[in-house]
Amino acid sequence: MVKVLLVLYDGGQHALDVPELLGTTENELGIRKWLEDQGHTLVTTSDKEGENSKFDQELVDAEIIITTPFHPGYLTAERLAKAKNLKIAITAGIGSDHVDLNAANKTNGGITVAEVTGSNVVSVAEHVLMTILVLIRNFVPAHEQIERGEWDVAAAAKQEYDLEGKVVGTVAVGRIGERVLRRLKPFDCKELLYYDYQPLSAEKEAEIGCRRVDTLEELLAQCDIVTINCPLHEKTKGLFNKELISKMKKGSYLVNTARGAIVVKEDPAPGDHVLRTAKNPFGGGNAMVPHMSGTSLDAQKRYADGTKAILTSYLTGKHDYRPEDLIVHGGDYATKAYGQRK
Amino acid sequence: MVKVLLVLYDGGQHALDVPELLGTTENELGIRKWLEDQGHTLVTTSDKEGENSKFDQELVDAEIIITTPFHPGYLTAERLAKAKNLKIAITAGIGSDHVDLNAANKTNGGITVAEVTGSNVVSVAEHVLMTILVLIRNFVPAHEQIERGEWDVAAAAKQEYDLEGKVVGTVAVGRIGERVLRRLKPFDCKELLYYDYQPLSAEKEAEIGCRRVDTLEELLAQCDIVTINCPLHEKTKGLFNKELISKMKKGSYLVNTARGAIVVKEDPAPGDHVLRTAKNPFGGGNAMVPHMSGTSLDAQKRYADGTKAILTSYLTGKHDYRPEDLIVHGGDYATKAYGQRK
Repeated sequence: MVKVLLVLYDGGQHALDVPELLGTTENELGIRKWLEDQGHTLVTTSDKEGENSKFDQELVDAEIIITTPFHPGYLTAERLAKAKNLKIAITAGIGSDHVDLNAANKTNGGITVAEVTGSNVVSVAEHVLMTILVLIRNFVPAHEQIERGEWDVAAAAKQEYDLEGKVVGTVAVGRIGERVLRRLKPFDCKELLYYDYQPLSAEKEAEIGCRRVDTLEELLAQCDIVTINCPLHEKTKGLFNKELISKMKKGSYLVNTARGAIVVKEDPAPGDHVLRTAKNPFGGGNAMVPHMSGTSLDAQKRYADGTKAILTSYLTGKHDYRPEDLIVHGGDYATKAYGQRK
Repeated sequence: MVKVLLVLYDGGQHALDVPELLGTTENELGIRKWLEDQGHTLVTTSDKEGENSKFDQELVDAEIIITTPFHPGYLTAERLAKAKNLKIAITAGIGSDHVDLNAANKTNGGITVAEVTGSNVVSVAEHVLMTILVLIRNFVPAHEQIERGEWDVAAAAKQEYDLEGKVVGTVAVGRIGERVLRRLKPFDCKELLYYDYQPLSAEKEAEIGCRRVDTLEELLAQCDIVTINCPLHEKTKGLFNKELISKMKKGSYLVNTARGAIVVKEDPAPGDHVLRTAKNPFGGGNAMVPHMSGTSLDAQKRYADGTKAILTSYLTGKHDYRPEDLIVHGGDYATKAYGQRK
């Protein structure tokens, strides 16, 4: 019989209002009864900070740890060293950057790290399109004006542009980046560009109408809108620093729906984080939201289902995981997504 | 030599900050010098309400009146009766519902009403896509949370859905409605529906992947999101009343980027208008903005250019208007867009 430790965000009243909020400590991905009926133990917590957190206390004898990117239970080298029984760490969602993957490869002879690939790529791609439109069309100040009881078309229109005719570029063209480009296609942008170590096939490029550029600097110099769709790993952490941002076109927009740490170091942003209220000179330019793009109710169902499938593969002893779900396995990386390794 | 009367919204400091705000009383569509160099007179005002407005005073001897939908100078039957010299009324933009078209056909033997067809259809279609995504993905409460210094994923996600798999329908599939459907295509909606007296060709339906429904009620009963893309005219005024809205699916969204009067009677909305601050039970569901969707800076250039082209057709005596720009001409309707007339 297996002990499963689950780290999720608290839903409180929201989780009671909406049972479809599966990714909360209250609704527990819908797996409690299913696990307990099989005789397993489930411990769920949102308490994950500091050395005496519930997460730290419970991980010492957990065989399976499930975490999410939305309220990340960081599996650091220190924590992994304490988790003597750990065999598999599952990310309910996509993005296992909160797990020290190099350490995972050395933990208990090499644990498995798996995530639910594909479960929220559409959700995030939609969020990217929404954010691009919100920014280029100056939505936020316009709606705030309405709520204040005002009606000033000029104030709203002075920074409102069309997406048509603009240059949009994605940093990385993986499962999310490609979906972003496909959704941008009918908007008749001037150009759709991408930067990635791995090119799309010529057929896909022609189908989407996009073009690869050789360097990040070349991408940034041409784009009215840059969208970041790469994972967070050693080589992308802090990638968008002052120097790189200075290569962007004046007045262009940066949409980061990937991980905060690719641009800034705090995630989640503290209450007084400067990016919460940053504005451009005309009061617009900010479309920041909490880490929600991949946790829509539709996505929660998909990653809850996917987590259950991974659990089943493990608990039945079949280990018949979907290859694309495996991040590290058997002491080595099973994907090239977390940096280009040999 | 001709007197031209131009009714636009005031830009104030915004117009000075951004010379591309052509649709303002300060920047006058960029036509003042061009008209005066030809010896014509231009009078520009934003004062259009009440019987003693500047608009009322100046229209008595104007040969050309230019207005916009964004700050509509209503050309009522009463005003048209006073405009003894009027020959042509130009809408700088699209949508001539602020002109009494039946009266125009009887004014001075039948004046011409022309608009800049196509000048902002893309702008509005983009605004529709943005609004759909903002609503279905629960953007507004999520961003407001950020500005308040909070970070509550559950509160944001409890009403956040994906557009993928939803049913979206457009009321009318003209220049804007069709562009909306084309932009929706790659989002993999469950179904794209439309209601219009004039069907798309079978080829277009197949290309877009959409389906016509026979009645408005049939459309509303199936849609998770309804987008209104018809002109305002006798038959659409007040169309979405309490009874029709009651036919919509529970929890569905209504996106009206056409004219306020199709749903409610006030446009622009007064400061205490209930729709400004209306929320659904979870605090979301409102993406209202001032009348800005068709007046992006890109659109302003297009409708300023188009207005100049119509002026040129008139002032040179060639009257070689683009047929699609003519609404009423020679005492009769030149389009079927403003209601189905014989």
